Amino acid sequence: MWFKLAPVQDDAVAESAGIAAGMSAADVRAAAGRLGSLTRVTPVIRSQALDAIAGCELWLKAENLQHVGAFKARGALHAVSRLDPAARARGVITYSSGNHAQAVAFAARHFGAPAWIAMPTDAPAVKVAGVRALGGQIVLAGTSSEERRAAALKLVEETGGVIVEPFDDADVIAGQGTATLELLAQVAAATDGGGLDALVVPVGGGGLIAGACLVAEEAGLAVYSAEPIGCDALAQSLAAGRRVAVPPGPTLADGLKPVRVGALNFAIAARAVRGALVVDDAALGQALVRLLLAAKVLVEPSGAAGLAVALGRMLPAQGRLRRVGVILSGGNVSPALVSSLLLRYGDAS
Amino acid sequence: MWFKLAPVQDDAVAESAGIAAGMSAADVRAAAGRLGSLTRVTPVIRSQALDAIAGCELWLKAENLQHVGAFKARGALHAVSRLDPAARARGVITYSSGNHAQAVAFAARHFGAPAWIAMPTDAPAVKVAGVRALGGQIVLAGTSSEERRAAALKLVEETGGVIVEPFDDADVIAGQGTATLELLAQVAAATDGGGLDALVVPVGGGGLIAGACLVAEEAGLAVYSAEPIGCDALAQSLAAGRRVAVPPGPTLADGLKPVRVGALNFAIAARAVRGALVVDDAALGQALVRLLLAAKVLVEPSGAAGLAVALGRMLPAQGRLRRVGVILSGGNVSPALVSSLLLRYGDAS
Repeated sequence: MWFKLAPVQDDAVAESAGIAAGMSAADVRAAAGRLGSLTRVTPVIRSQALDAIAGCELWLKAENLQHVGAFKARGALHAVSRLDPAARARGVITYSSGNHAQAVAFAARHFGAPAWIAMPTDAPAVKVAGVRALGGQIVLAGTSSEERRAAALKLVEETGGVIVEPFDDADVIAGQGTATLELLAQVAAATDGGGLDALVVPVGGGGLIAGACLVAEEAGLAVYSAEPIGCDALAQSLAAGRRVAVPPGPTLADGLKPVRVGALNFAIAARAVRGALVVDDAALGQALVRLLLAAKVLVEPSGAAGLAVALGRMLPAQGRLRRVGVILSGGNVSPALVSSLLLRYGDAS
Repeated sequence: MWFKLAPVQDDAVAESAGIAAGMSAADVRAAAGRLGSLTRVTPVIRSQALDAIAGCELWLKAENLQHVGAFKARGALHAVSRLDPAARARGVITYSSGNHAQAVAFAARHFGAPAWIAMPTDAPAVKVAGVRALGGQIVLAGTSSEERRAAALKLVEETGGVIVEPFDDADVIAGQGTATLELLAQVAAATDGGGLDALVVPVGGGGLIAGACLVAEEAGLAVYSAEPIGCDALAQSLAAGRRVAVPPGPTLADGLKPVRVGALNFAIAARAVRGALVVDDAALGQALVRLLLAAKVLVEPSGAAGLAVALGRMLPAQGRLRRVGVILSGGNVSPALVSSLLLRYGDAS
């Protein structure tokens, strides 16, 4: 899928256009420098069995092995590190379906600040428990990201604290970009300076892919987005040439269900994403199980979206690509769901 | 459990004593040099949640992410690389309950040689399929390692090929030792030269632990063995001061069921293993599930034995240790078993 974009018409995107235009790989490198050893250098996983299915080399960036089990720790740590210390001390507030919530709780704890998190009433128990274990205080608020955002704004009024946006924020985007920066360095080190021919990134609100785009633009690397069918806000927005709100349909990928991608995220993605792919629950479940059995690492369904694209050979001319990078974005998933997916897809994998 | 060893009386051990006495960390470094990039540098996994359970820092060497999903690729590649090329071209033969079988098939394929493997009639389907996928030819032979060895000797007669022993072999041991060599370098790099206070290693025939002991002796590192209850051939042998045959009882850890540890392995382990621990199926299953949910990596039950020891705080004065290394030895396990363990232990983990 290739896009010819109409001019951006969305007010929020227009407001973000200046910030987006000023952002580049240099912001990601600066974030990496600030983060230092606060984040983990996650491994790149290789599997001959998965390569055979994909028809190319897959270089799997295991952000499921990042702190709190997701890339979200990068953006949250970076953004919280950049907050005004006095405001931060009053409280760090966010709204999230799960992994960003854990990431902000983790980051707030690191900086000795209290954390309040607005989470959806249908958040997976494993993610709620994760926030609580990190000392975060939870306010349950509806099922959409907009309901959660309203609850977070109320918390700001009550506490005098400050919001860390889940994705529509320059510091968050630069932080998330460090995953791609690291991946390219790891691929170069392992291949004597060779590079990737494409990168596939799961998309919810667009923090991870916007950061990836900043790095990829400089590297001349083609970036593709992966979204669940029915929650393809980026695909529809890119096709329309403006941000489209998509009331999220049912999906196993609970982390990829925002109503809209971020304005800043859209402005950056629109200039660098080469194609937008969608996958169904069966592809997500099968990719999760294949990865687990062949490569021995566990992702959540959201974290399998990019891999599902690659295993489905959905990239343009995929058979002619040599090395494809895939970000495994997170690994927080309920044992019952993994158990049932193993029974459903385990033998066929 | 601490040992005072009586003099070794076993003829095979006595024969091996000279070889064992001559082996050191230098042999492991030489193996690492020969292997170069044939083996993967597997990541070291960290998890704050698991550290909290263990009461110390756990540095988990993820050999489940090695080629063929187990450390066995190290020893097999090293041993096959050292075979006489003419004999190797006639065939590489071995006997194994599974992971060594896949490793030898993988190594033989790398060197362009045919592979014949004697496997037990009750080998997990996932391991049989793994050997076949690597081009290995399978001869099913009984359920004990001694029955499989007899079948392998017959294959040598028939083909003129050469056996790669699963564990009782200097080249195999030196190859397996590279996992520990790598781990110590990774820990030192991550801690500014700091070291481990203890290392826990799963034991079947003793290839992995003998290699670990060679490295640990030089580093002054305490090594502990982890075996399933009822299959604790090393623990019983160390306690007796001589090799003891233990008809293996039922265990989830299908990779840790040899009747006896190797003679060379025993001779090396007897001089360096500081204590021998045993774990039951519940501890193995719970460790597997905790690792999967907290650290997002999948091991087979055998591969969880060292972790089960650490999570059970079974090491002497474990609460006073700072950094404990654990080798996650392999990850080849049936989806049905993982599914059922997740249901059994997922909520409590």
